[in-house]
Amino acid sequence: MTDSGSRSYSLREIARRFGGEIAGDPDFEVRRVATLENAGPDSIAFLANARYLPQLKATRAGAVIVGKGDRAATGAPRIVCANPYVYFARVSALFNPAPGARPGVHPTAVVDGAARVAGNAEIGPCAVIERGAEIGAGCVIGAGCSIGEDVVIGAGTRLYANVSVYRGCVVGQRVILHAGVVIGSDGFGLAMEEGRWIKVPQIGRVMIGDDVEIGANTTVDRGALDDTVIEDGVKLDNQIQVGHNVRIGAHTAIAACTGIAGSAKIGRNCRIGGASGIAGHITIADGVEISTYTLITKSIDRPGTYTGAYAFEPHRQWLRNAAQLRHLDELARRVRALEKKPKQPKRSTP
Amino acid sequence: MTDSGSRSYSLREIARRFGGEIAGDPDFEVRRVATLENAGPDSIAFLANARYLPQLKATRAGAVIVGKGDRAATGAPRIVCANPYVYFARVSALFNPAPGARPGVHPTAVVDGAARVAGNAEIGPCAVIERGAEIGAGCVIGAGCSIGEDVVIGAGTRLYANVSVYRGCVVGQRVILHAGVVIGSDGFGLAMEEGRWIKVPQIGRVMIGDDVEIGANTTVDRGALDDTVIEDGVKLDNQIQVGHNVRIGAHTAIAACTGIAGSAKIGRNCRIGGASGIAGHITIADGVEISTYTLITKSIDRPGTYTGAYAFEPHRQWLRNAAQLRHLDELARRVRALEKKPKQPKRSTP
Amino acid sequence: MTDSGSRSYSLREIARRFGGEIAGDPDFEVRRVATLENAGPDSIAFLANARYLPQLKATRAGAVIVGKGDRAATGAPRIVCANPYVYFARVSALFNPAPGARPGVHPTAVVDGAARVAGNAEIGPCAVIERGAEIGAGCVIGAGCSIGEDVVIGAGTRLYANVSVYRGCVVGQRVILHAGVVIGSDGFGLAMEEGRWIKVPQIGRVMIGDDVEIGANTTVDRGALDDTVIEDGVKLDNQIQVGHNVRIGAHTAIAACTGIAGSAKIGRNCRIGGASGIAGHITIADGVEISTYTLITKSIDRPGTYTGAYAFEPHRQWLRNAAQLRHLDELARRVRALEKKPKQPKRSTP
Repeated sequence: MTDSGSRSYSLREIARRFGGEIAGDPDFEVRRVATLENAGPDSIAFLANARYLPQLKATRAGAVIVGKGDRAATGAPRIVCANPYVYFARVSALFNPAPGARPGVHPTAVVDGAARVAGNAEIGPCAVIERGAEIGAGCVIGAGCSIGEDVVIGAGTRLYANVSVYRGCVVGQRVILHAGVVIGSDGFGLAMEEGRWIKVPQIGRVMIGDDVEIGANTTVDRGALDDTVIEDGVKLDNQIQVGHNVRIGAHTAIAACTGIAGSAKIGRNCRIGGASGIAGHITIADGVEISTYTLITKSIDRPGTYTGAYAFEPHRQWLRNAAQLRHLDELARRVRALEKKPKQPKRSTP
Repeated sequence: MTDSGSRSYSLREIARRFGGEIAGDPDFEVRRVATLENAGPDSIAFLANARYLPQLKATRAGAVIVGKGDRAATGAPRIVCANPYVYFARVSALFNPAPGARPGVHPTAVVDGAARVAGNAEIGPCAVIERGAEIGAGCVIGAGCSIGEDVVIGAGTRLYANVSVYRGCVVGQRVILHAGVVIGSDGFGLAMEEGRWIKVPQIGRVMIGDDVEIGANTTVDRGALDDTVIEDGVKLDNQIQVGHNVRIGAHTAIAACTGIAGSAKIGRNCRIGGASGIAGHITIADGVEISTYTLITKSIDRPGTYTGAYAFEPHRQWLRNAAQLRHLDELARRVRALEKKPKQPKRSTP
Repeated sequence: MTDSGSRSYSLREIARRFGGEIAGDPDFEVRRVATLENAGPDSIAFLANARYLPQLKATRAGAVIVGKGDRAATGAPRIVCANPYVYFARVSALFNPAPGARPGVHPTAVVDGAARVAGNAEIGPCAVIERGAEIGAGCVIGAGCSIGEDVVIGAGTRLYANVSVYRGCVVGQRVILHAGVVIGSDGFGLAMEEGRWIKVPQIGRVMIGDDVEIGANTTVDRGALDDTVIEDGVKLDNQIQVGHNVRIGAHTAIAACTGIAGSAKIGRNCRIGGASGIAGHITIADGVEISTYTLITKSIDRPGTYTGAYAFEPHRQWLRNAAQLRHLDELARRVRALEKKPKQPKRSTP
């Protein structure tokens, strides 16, 4: 829990910025945000899920953000609002603003003479900006990043350390790329000829919209011919793999370790669980939810939640069940046979 | 879709280089390659799969590459050949040649005095080449790469940005390592003693053959004692993990997010789907195909396709089926009991 | 197999250091360690698993480390001990000591004036150490690493190339972070408001204990408010994802490609197989073993082995079984119906 600096805000000031209704002392001064569990008397915490009600009872937080139904669940000074988690996100950002760019090009950075870097952008140590690249206003390019030829990075975008963006890719505004992200690597395009693979040149780009966030060590391949597209507001967690010519619709969120095979089209406002897989060349409708550890092998044309994980068991029990799973088709045939058995009694009583 | 520069080629010139039969105007001038869907009148596209026949009907492509069976499927100028996808790969490489090395060591690169770098190799900004390393003719070492002591990189090999190769590893000729690849990290070698792990030194190397391509953020561990080996022509997609002492046979292709545990031996010309897993110490025969999201727990001694993914369902349906899966062994026993029921009629009619 | 330098040790010297009983010539001079399979006459190998007994018979190793039960399994000079693999780990470390720090800051490294770097630490080329960071005695910070503001790195810790540690994180003593590791990236904290995601600031830290090893390209997210904690002696393999506010208990080992969702608590001395998944907000007891490719969706409160992988099959067989799996609940109902069938004979023989 980081110390958030010296500035404090009263509940009244907070509610003036973000709305909501104050219950209890409006002049209570908040110094930091915290969890219910670890809050101190100068902190504001939040309750977004009824299962944390016991923690609310026990908290030492000086103030709390609660939903309308939980107005009476605490006597502490509180803000009552429609969506406590969103409200908390805003309050937390007030106390913990994203660090801004420190304008300038570090002397160890390597910026090609034919690159265009906004005057108020920050180019970190040992970052490399190649010919024809454009770095927008207020960008932060972290230490050791590599920005290829003709890449465009929109205003207000932040790349943490050691991000690699291959030539020609386009990144929108207010995007966050975490450390180790790779954008625009070659897709897995191979043609088989007489037992050997021939590389198919990957000449499309990656196009990333505005307000996208991409987690650490996630990789997004460039398109084979057309582009790979990540629309506005998409949130990708760490270690996700996005194949060539994938399109991810706006405001879709995908949890860590998921793999998306080439040319899959994922709709808008989808929520995809961690370590799931999306097969190539399929289409997923808007608003679909996919559970963690689930492989989607066919297109999904209507919203809903889809699941396909093998539920874990104690190993011995799994051994027995998994063994039977290999004979499930046979078992089903045996049940059919039992169902078809002639009603013997009638025939056997002549 | 990248503009491919100014040079154009007639179908006649293309067929002279790569073979095939021309139908329609042999003097048609091609300026670029494209998909059927997005091609313009100066583009050549291809048809490699019958399901894109509707796109062939609608395409604005000036010329098309088709298989022998699809000779009559279009009236556009076309090249008829045995394998349109391979042919297209060659044509695309003609229009989009891989960029060559720009010989020289960038002034911000750090090359040890006891390293040997070919005169026509390109060492990018902030790349580090340690003592005893050898960089072959025409290599490109991207920005921020780290090449450890005594590493050997064969001629014509390209490392994109931020690749790390640990000491002593050997990379063949014409290899491509994408950004963020790690070669030669320590394998997961641990010995348990009284509740604590003792590290087992990992002193083998990684040996990578010729014409290998390794995707972004893939990791290949060095051998514990003997070497980890990736044979010629192997293609690894992004975010694959190759454990210590694995051997991958020549011309095997492995899709993204797959994990290969230590000492597994994979044959030649295998095709392994994405997010699959290969257990340690097993052997997989030549020519095996493994479906995506499949865990291989035992050796496979004959070619064929092997699968083991749980097929996804709507969540409610999954809840019911997955619950029964935990009782599958019991269900099988109950079916056996039903099958063994005495033929009651005979006994009941004395 | 690396040549281990010129120093040799007699079995007597080895046993004096590490214990065990010598059988055969105590003056046999060992020059290197090797596998039974590839050992030469100046090597010492080991037998830790009975399945390698045939290799013991055939080995050319000059000396062998064996367990007490295998004392008579070879006539070669040997060391008999309780745990041959641990013993071998120690002998291998004797012949292959981890390279020490070469004290000094490389001229291309960028060390902020307000960072504190121990005099005998090694800061590699193009490494970046930001304001307020502390680098302990004997540390090695590899080429291209990025160490954020106020990071603390304990004594004797080694970071290989291109590691990124975000601001404020704390790394213990004698820790090893392999290339491409990311520590302290933002957790996946998002609040949904009217179809758009609001970022929840991630202001916790990552706290890593002593004697931890983290494999290549593994990522560990910082806590949302409280910290993400990795206790002493934890071993993480490559490409693992650790979500925000996870806690991993001491001496737990986790194999590659595993994903651990936010706020999961994993006990001490657990062993978690590769490509497994741990759901968010669950608790796993001390001493639990989880099989490879298994998704743990609920808390586990007692030690034992837990498994949940779909066992692979030839594809055709899988097609049939997987199809029936979608009807398993219905099948179970049909079996119940068969079981409930009236005992017809009795009623049909009036």
